[in-house]
Amino acid sequence: MAARPKLHYPNGRGRMESVRWVLAAAGVEISSNSEFLFSGNHLLFQQVPMVEIDGMKLVQTRCILHYIAEKHHLFGKDLKERTLIDMYVEGTLDLLELLIMHPFLKPEDQQKEVVNMAQKAIIRYFPVFEKVLRNHGQNFLVGNQLSLADVILLQTILALEEKIPNILSAFPFLQVNRMVYWKTAEPGSKKKPPPDEIYVRTVYNIFMP
Amino acid sequence: MAARPKLHYPNGRGRMESVRWVLAAAGVEISSNSEFLFSGNHLLFQQVPMVEIDGMKLVQTRCILHYIAEKHHLFGKDLKERTLIDMYVEGTLDLLELLIMHPFLKPEDQQKEVVNMAQKAIIRYFPVFEKVLRNHGQNFLVGNQLSLADVILLQTILALEEKIPNILSAFPFLQVNRMVYWKTAEPGSKKKPPPDEIYVRTVYNIFMP
Repeated sequence: MAARPKLHYPNGRGRMESVRWVLAAAGVEISSNSEFLFSGNHLLFQQVPMVEIDGMKLVQTRCILHYIAEKHHLFGKDLKERTLIDMYVEGTLDLLELLIMHPFLKPEDQQKEVVNMAQKAIIRYFPVFEKVLRNHGQNFLVGNQLSLADVILLQTILALEEKIPNILSAFPFLQVNRMVYWKTAEPGSKKKPPPDEIYVRTVYNIFMP
Repeated sequence: MAARPKLHYPNGRGRMESVRWVLAAAGVEISSNSEFLFSGNHLLFQQVPMVEIDGMKLVQTRCILHYIAEKHHLFGKDLKERTLIDMYVEGTLDLLELLIMHPFLKPEDQQKEVVNMAQKAIIRYFPVFEKVLRNHGQNFLVGNQLSLADVILLQTILALEEKIPNILSAFPFLQVNRMVYWKTAEPGSKKKPPPDEIYVRTVYNIFMP
């Protein structure tokens, strides 16, 4: 049996949460003694996330996501499908990045940024995915099966709904598929809770001492 | 004969320059009537870079780079090599991003940022690539042949040298390989000049009117 992947990150969502989601969607259990490693020569570019997997110490969120998706057949059946998935994931990650940075904004800027995120989601990103689903009538964004694109989109939708519960109200196809994805990619107990003050303080202390 | 790729971007480096480099390294000529398109439904997420290629309208820099690299055998021979290339590219893109944003900083912040870029390059990124080259004794970063990782690293090194001419002085292997890459990936006349005031003003007018 292959060793379970070991995740190195502070105890919160941040950039590692997408990795937790895609591992869960792939049915891969992570090592229970995942820990936070931020020293020595284990981090190629002196940064986390870092994931020990299959004898490698992988860094860079996208690289980690791509490796897991490729290995577990979540990256399309050919170059054209892979490219569509890549494009959808990159767009969704731009939106998700706003959510990742949100807890580190000054308190007086946080509410304004929620409005900005809602606008970006509703005007720029969700119409694209709604149209894709409406046009091909399938349950998943690419190739009629679960891919990295669906997983990251579901993660992003759920995180946005925590701040803006009715964010999907104008997107009926995304609403339906949110449920389908959820059943397929339900990441169970590996999910981390929304960032709280302790997480924000921990990250500040580590990265911006 | 396949139609030449058509690049949609303002007339300057920005995020499109990496695409120009990898197309040049792959020996692909671009359409001479590449133009700047920023309207209609042609841009999936209302953003450039956009590249028309093989019947697709690709957006998102990484997606475009991955597609071209995969198609033209610049992405390794197996998943392990691909993953290394992906990881090196992602690290280098983090450094390149500082260069891309530099012309848009306030004049009084630009010199300070050059110092920051130099430190990041010398402390965080270049030692990694120097060590890789020294350890395996080959001319290219991965798999003993030119890959996307070499192309983006060369682009980044040359752009940094415009600001800090001796940036490679402590990295003899990178100095040697800079020449080897250069011969292999020389992108000829497709390169854009360093960003000048006209480019900065154009981008401001388009993106931040």
